[in-house]
Amino acid sequence: MSLLIKDATIVTQDAARRIVRGSILIDGGAIMQVGEVRGGADAVIEAHGKIAMPGLVNMHTHVGMTVLRGYGEGLPLQRWLDEKIWPAEARQTAEDAAAGARLAFCEMIRGGTTTFAEMCIHPVDGVFKAAADAGMRGRIGRGLMDFNHPEWIPKIMKEVEASLQLGGGGLLPFVGAHAPYTCSEELLMKAKELARRNDLPFQMHVAETRKEVFDVLKARGKYPFEYLDSIGLMDRSSIFAHGNWLTKREMGIAGRAGITVAACPISGLKLAVGGISQLAELDALGANVTLGTDGAASNNSLDMFQTMKMAALLQSHHYWKADALPAQKALDFSTINGAKALGFNTGSIEPGKGADIIILERGPNLRPEHDLIANLVYSAGPQNVSDAVIGGKIVMQGRRILTIDEAAAMKEAEDAAKSIAGS
Amino acid sequence: MSLLIKDATIVTQDAARRIVRGSILIDGGAIMQVGEVRGGADAVIEAHGKIAMPGLVNMHTHVGMTVLRGYGEGLPLQRWLDEKIWPAEARQTAEDAAAGARLAFCEMIRGGTTTFAEMCIHPVDGVFKAAADAGMRGRIGRGLMDFNHPEWIPKIMKEVEASLQLGGGGLLPFVGAHAPYTCSEELLMKAKELARRNDLPFQMHVAETRKEVFDVLKARGKYPFEYLDSIGLMDRSSIFAHGNWLTKREMGIAGRAGITVAACPISGLKLAVGGISQLAELDALGANVTLGTDGAASNNSLDMFQTMKMAALLQSHHYWKADALPAQKALDFSTINGAKALGFNTGSIEPGKGADIIILERGPNLRPEHDLIANLVYSAGPQNVSDAVIGGKIVMQGRRILTIDEAAAMKEAEDAAKSIAGS
Repeated sequence: MSLLIKDATIVTQDAARRIVRGSILIDGGAIMQVGEVRGGADAVIEAHGKIAMPGLVNMHTHVGMTVLRGYGEGLPLQRWLDEKIWPAEARQTAEDAAAGARLAFCEMIRGGTTTFAEMCIHPVDGVFKAAADAGMRGRIGRGLMDFNHPEWIPKIMKEVEASLQLGGGGLLPFVGAHAPYTCSEELLMKAKELARRNDLPFQMHVAETRKEVFDVLKARGKYPFEYLDSIGLMDRSSIFAHGNWLTKREMGIAGRAGITVAACPISGLKLAVGGISQLAELDALGANVTLGTDGAASNNSLDMFQTMKMAALLQSHHYWKADALPAQKALDFSTINGAKALGFNTGSIEPGKGADIIILERGPNLRPEHDLIANLVYSAGPQNVSDAVIGGKIVMQGRRILTIDEAAAMKEAEDAAKSIAGS
Repeated sequence: MSLLIKDATIVTQDAARRIVRGSILIDGGAIMQVGEVRGGADAVIEAHGKIAMPGLVNMHTHVGMTVLRGYGEGLPLQRWLDEKIWPAEARQTAEDAAAGARLAFCEMIRGGTTTFAEMCIHPVDGVFKAAADAGMRGRIGRGLMDFNHPEWIPKIMKEVEASLQLGGGGLLPFVGAHAPYTCSEELLMKAKELARRNDLPFQMHVAETRKEVFDVLKARGKYPFEYLDSIGLMDRSSIFAHGNWLTKREMGIAGRAGITVAACPISGLKLAVGGISQLAELDALGANVTLGTDGAASNNSLDMFQTMKMAALLQSHHYWKADALPAQKALDFSTINGAKALGFNTGSIEPGKGADIIILERGPNLRPEHDLIANLVYSAGPQNVSDAVIGGKIVMQGRRILTIDEAAAMKEAEDAAKSIAGS
């Protein structure tokens, strides 16, 4: 099926970062023409006066946890985890996680996110199914952990190998490990080796909290990125979430290895981690910088526009420098850099690219337009997103989600939340 | 005219912070009944399944600057001011400022803000008129300054005295001075005296940047709040915006005097001021803590939901303490505390209060509802606001603004922006 997005202001995110006025012709899931378009299409989205841009890429989240949004609020971090989140996760079934995923995809689509990288606690089957139904693009994997019990590894690896057969097209697996402090060295190396053998990205939480950095330092005698480098985990297919507490030396290693950092600025503030991922430096040093929301339990939303804004502003704050990170960089982090890390041929609006495109209405919060990119990064929000296309398929049109029964998804998530909370 | 808001979940913000299920009967601009309501009304807003809460109070903004949103982005702070913002403000006419105000009110209403405190650069007439047309509630005043030329004071005072006659009902004046470093001591004292004589709030920028603190220290031999205390400016009717760099001693003075602090967390990050207003301590010490967006040129939005979220999260970040500021406090700052500072009988949904109420739809981003207050502070946004009532008058219904021709307001603001930018 072909689709024409007609007469928009197109933020292409191409190599020259051009903004052009025109139309986008899509066929077979791919972008065929951009700008002056010849020929018609089976379907048309009228975008006169609107903005077309690449869909946003949420590089680190836990969609199953969406049913825990607002659960156990107001507690100090460790009590929140010990008394609320971990027991709730233990009670949560794979069905509850799938309900959380369906709710998350509604929120993502409404917020202009078309692609996600999901680290699951539960088996990934339900999330693959929910994502396929929703028409989302993404990578899904477990966050493996053995709590330094290498004798568990054979069983863990057998399970994860089976799950690598899931998905297809725009929904693919990755291999994930939870964190350097919850995994034995053997598990980390076996997981990375499995990712290499299958040509898959590898994702892990790293340097999220200061305590974690010191725990790794104590156990391994090295800072996290130094340690991961010493066991061969730092390369272009590694995605490390958070990175709030990195030494200059570690940022150098990250840059030379060309790893991807998936910073979660809002979750970091909410969990009071204290550190701020130094994205401007990581980017300058050669790391592939991307952004994520983390789970809704620690954000408490899945809003990538808000995430772009806060990522940029926290750089200004951290460096005491209002121009620490240009708005264009924040947009790159959330589009082309994310697509690159996940191995999707998307992230920009150019002929030959996969057609992941969102349409924004220019409401009063996007006026005037002295600087369109600044408006997108600092002023836009879910209220502006009217339409979303993923792989050439319309998933939201005129603010109505076409792929998910939203009322049913909200009801199921509420029911799952009640059963988990035991209320 | 009477109005019935029917069958909502009502976040009352009353003394017990009760959340009740029921209806709200409004007559003559005031709330008559809350909960189980007897009798009908001239008009009805069906709110079944929705949330009714007090409209948000934006305690520090510059609505005229909305036409400068995104202007001169990407420059370091001082060059941004010297080369872009100040020349643009000099070119800006009172008409341009009024156009900015109309655009700002569209964005505010869509974002659930019903009350604002505006510090104008230009004569206030146009903003009073635009606010009256929009049906907004607020206080409007100039930010007086004499750059230490006390000989200008008689002319300044004459002008400002005349402007105090403007407004009425829900739109009232305040007396404002720009900042301790742009005003002579004589101007500060005369302005505060004028406010006292007319029983008006007094508003000023204080301790926004570190440089300013050191400039005041050098010129006056005291930290800003100590200096203001020594000349009699610290009392319950003083509203000081920002307060990013305060000593413990100054926070003690603020608490004992019961001043209002209007923190602008997002603007502070964007301008790279480096400091974070320590709201949890100011609140505990007895200051009346409130929140504002600042102008759209340094935010770049007028979104009070985002402001509440960031205010709370920056406390967690600053204190390395995830429970530094309960969500309920952030909501209080943006509702009852703001109303109190501005002298309006609003900020909560109780019989006898002025009827400033917003209605929120429970979209996927507000599900599940383990904690409604946390959802409002951390997860809600303009996308959830469907209706707004100010002083009993419906200003937005079903996402359509009734009081402003939004398309015309956007067009006028774009035109003003072009003429100011000289493009």
